[in-house]
Amino acid sequence: VEILLNYIKKTYDGKSKVLDFHHPHQLLEGLEGFSLELRDQPEPLEQILVDCRDTLKYGVKTGHPRYFNQLSSGLDIVGLAGEWLSATANTNMFTYEIAPVFVVMEEILLKKMHEMVGWGEMEADGIFSPGGTISNLYSVLVARYKRFPEIKTKGMAALPHISLFVSEHSHYSVKKAAAVLGIGTDNVIAVKCDERGKMIPSDLEAKILKVKRQDHIPLYVSATAGTTVYGAFDPLDNIADICEKYGLWMHVDVMLFRNIFGLSPRANSVTWNPHKLMGVPLQCSAFLVCEKGLLQACNQMCAGYLFQPDKQYDTTYDTGDKTIQCGRHVDVFKLWLMWKAKGTRGFEILINKSLELAEYLYKELNSRENFELVFDAEPELTNVCFWYIPPNLRRIPNGPEREKLLHQVAPKIKARMIEEGTTMVSYQPHGDKVNFFRMVFSNPATRKSDVDFLLEEIERLGKDL
Amino acid sequence: VEILLNYIKKTYDGKSKVLDFHHPHQLLEGLEGFSLELRDQPEPLEQILVDCRDTLKYGVKTGHPRYFNQLSSGLDIVGLAGEWLSATANTNMFTYEIAPVFVVMEEILLKKMHEMVGWGEMEADGIFSPGGTISNLYSVLVARYKRFPEIKTKGMAALPHISLFVSEHSHYSVKKAAAVLGIGTDNVIAVKCDERGKMIPSDLEAKILKVKRQDHIPLYVSATAGTTVYGAFDPLDNIADICEKYGLWMHVDVMLFRNIFGLSPRANSVTWNPHKLMGVPLQCSAFLVCEKGLLQACNQMCAGYLFQPDKQYDTTYDTGDKTIQCGRHVDVFKLWLMWKAKGTRGFEILINKSLELAEYLYKELNSRENFELVFDAEPELTNVCFWYIPPNLRRIPNGPEREKLLHQVAPKIKARMIEEGTTMVSYQPHGDKVNFFRMVFSNPATRKSDVDFLLEEIERLGKDL
Ligand SMILES: Cc1ncc(COP(=O)(O)O)c(C=O)c1O
Ligand SMILES: Cc1ncc(COP(=O)(O)O)c(C=O)c1O
Repeated sequence: VEILLNYIKKTYDGKSKVLDFHHPHQLLEGLEGFSLELRDQPEPLEQILVDCRDTLKYGVKTGHPRYFNQLSSGLDIVGLAGEWLSATANTNMFTYEIAPVFVVMEEILLKKMHEMVGWGEMEADGIFSPGGTISNLYSVLVARYKRFPEIKTKGMAALPHISLFVSEHSHYSVKKAAAVLGIGTDNVIAVKCDERGKMIPSDLEAKILKVKRQDHIPLYVSATAGTTVYGAFDPLDNIADICEKYGLWMHVDVMLFRNIFGLSPRANSVTWNPHKLMGVPLQCSAFLVCEKGLLQACNQMCAGYLFQPDKQYDTTYDTGDKTIQCGRHVDVFKLWLMWKAKGTRGFEILINKSLELAEYLYKELNSRENFELVFDAEPELTNVCFWYIPPNLRRIPNGPEREKLLHQVAPKIKARMIEEGTTMVSYQPHGDKVNFFRMVFSNPATRKSDVDFLLEEIERLGKDL
Repeated sequence: VEILLNYIKKTYDGKSKVLDFHHPHQLLEGLEGFSLELRDQPEPLEQILVDCRDTLKYGVKTGHPRYFNQLSSGLDIVGLAGEWLSATANTNMFTYEIAPVFVVMEEILLKKMHEMVGWGEMEADGIFSPGGTISNLYSVLVARYKRFPEIKTKGMAALPHISLFVSEHSHYSVKKAAAVLGIGTDNVIAVKCDERGKMIPSDLEAKILKVKRQDHIPLYVSATAGTTVYGAFDPLDNIADICEKYGLWMHVDVMLFRNIFGLSPRANSVTWNPHKLMGVPLQCSAFLVCEKGLLQACNQMCAGYLFQPDKQYDTTYDTGDKTIQCGRHVDVFKLWLMWKAKGTRGFEILINKSLELAEYLYKELNSRENFELVFDAEPELTNVCFWYIPPNLRRIPNGPEREKLLHQVAPKIKARMIEEGTTMVSYQPHGDKVNFFRMVFSNPATRKSDVDFLLEEIERLGKDL
């Protein structure tokens, strides 16, 4: 416990490095006193403690104020306490019998989230899943079952040809779901986005019509409220109009928190990931669906050894038949506890802080001549995308030659950053854009000075490129 | 932290109750001082601490020596420390970049497990998943992809009619996978079992031939090494012969640990759940596959924002494209740490202890006249299945009337057990057998006296029925 508390202190103070990088083969071979090998015989307790310390030492401090690599960052102490308690309780969400309090907490959280989505008094339903990708998989699964309930017993062979629609900026999880569910990635149609990364409704409609002309069934659209890279919001109302017109299931993959109030009452289902912007420790993701009973009907197998109908309590509280899992980890308690400790207001404040930082970074980038924005628009979420242009490159006129060189800048800076361990930010190419940095804020420990630090660090590491 | 340590002490001492039962509506309405409701405004720290205490108070002590309800039981202190550390590190398995140590630990664990399965030096592969059901889903997914790689892009529409085979005693997860993957539960063929619950190879062969006569493709068999209810071992070698003969993928769903050495070298894939008999805190499940690269090929989407090919380290250590998830919780560290602390030998000792208790119970049941075994055979795993026959029932001759009454005995005893909170054991009907109790041992804190207690408690609670 002391080792852990020490680590937490170090993570917060921000003076330590974000990481102490070693290559895979170095870890495999073992570093001084730290061997990952497993033996037949037990090792002494002191060694175990040293191992714990080393595991943290050679890891990445995701709660460090200068860690910007992923949206899941920060180290909320209440959330952490919640996770520790869940681990101590070590139970399983599949039946009320062995997780009574947690199952009821899940119900309360789902209800709260439904209200916030804007479904009002509707008898909505949902489940916590091991991540946003699985939640998105649930959305396709349920949409398919709703239209074609025979899928469960007969499989895709009994169905007509179906098509799913996502924007070209959407997360890859819907494509992954299509591969897993036997729909096939070819049947996931990419809808065009505008310069800002928002789905273009007229292109959605055109593609739906095209699919219909081929006698395929347009089944489902996934819209994103805060895309992975650009942090863009798809025009939900326009998309809902089109879904209504052509009878498609509308899913919304939600990244934000603040604006979720009444965000998508017209959606059929929503993925909401508290383990992202809300700062809840991994894993914590909710799939919400506006029709009660659908999840259960779609997934239930009525296993006699778990879901005995002759139990003495109301067995609708046995959630195990709603899921694609059997055993299910308790992911709700940490969120419930954080909600208690912060209140809904507290989460708003948290997100607002991150949004302010994004705005600050946006302004800084605009005013610094060595940086260029990928698109010049005020951030809608906490994402900010930009290039660093080293002095040597600024002399080269726009064109393929410059693009080629620029493409190599971010990876080189990132490599140096990791070697030095001072900060971490992600980069990627996107569409026709060469490698650029993507900042995301979600760590309440981050200050404006950390943002300044990042920009200066990028310049320091990249000015000779 | 103090609350948690206190709880752990109470769980171990075994004098406390296993649970303090309340109905869902009671929890929803709130118990004295314990309201599950969520508000807009934050609540004070003292309330949060009280909430933590109450959450544990009204929960189920799965580490209690008299908790026998599920296979996942016990509260291993090293495993718990491992989970606390993982929560504190709060990172994500998808890239080496942000989870270097954990990713390498996963590789080391997978290698160790492969050796134990008996695949020897073969370049095997695998992934940790959020549970045995998802691991079993991976097995069907990979088997299907191996035979028909076009499934990924074209979906089931491009495939011939395929069939999967499981025994009638197998876990429902393969059926669930068939529903999810678009294969359909009708295409999961149940193979008959003998009285002891083992798959009958000749029936498997007959059913494969039948399917072939219908011009369907027999694709996959899942055999079980330790079934859920009976704890039975399917005859793996005979099944492997048949799989070889007809070209089926052989999966083995493994429940045990001790005999795993060289258990299934002929399998194409294996599910191994350390969160069951090995006593690792939930969730911890591994899917192992004997062909390197298959998982990656089957699941990869090459998302540019995570899996940049131009990173400075060996990117084959980025595991995110092997999974059906994106973000993935760190489930490996607690297992790695327990392995360090116990050694392979320590796990063997643990399982042997549980097996001894199962044998003890079996003998006790045989010698007590109010109990009847569901099948009279030495336990192969830690499962023991039995009926309690109340005095009133012993007077009734065998036949439908007695069966009908006997069916009601276990649920009634279980209901009383839960109300009193003294112990917990599960029951279920199975095939043509009416409700019986199923004991499973996995908690190292359990003693023979706890087994005696259970039997006496069943008698006490059931003698008037
Ligand atoms: C034989 C068998 N396989 C798979 C599973 C599913 O495991 P999990 O609960 O981790 O999904 C179980 C669970 O009881 C089981 O008994
Ligand atoms: C828009 C969006 N949806 C879904 C996901 C997947 O979430 P998870 O990593 O929890 O599976 C992400 C992750 O980056 C995302 O950005």
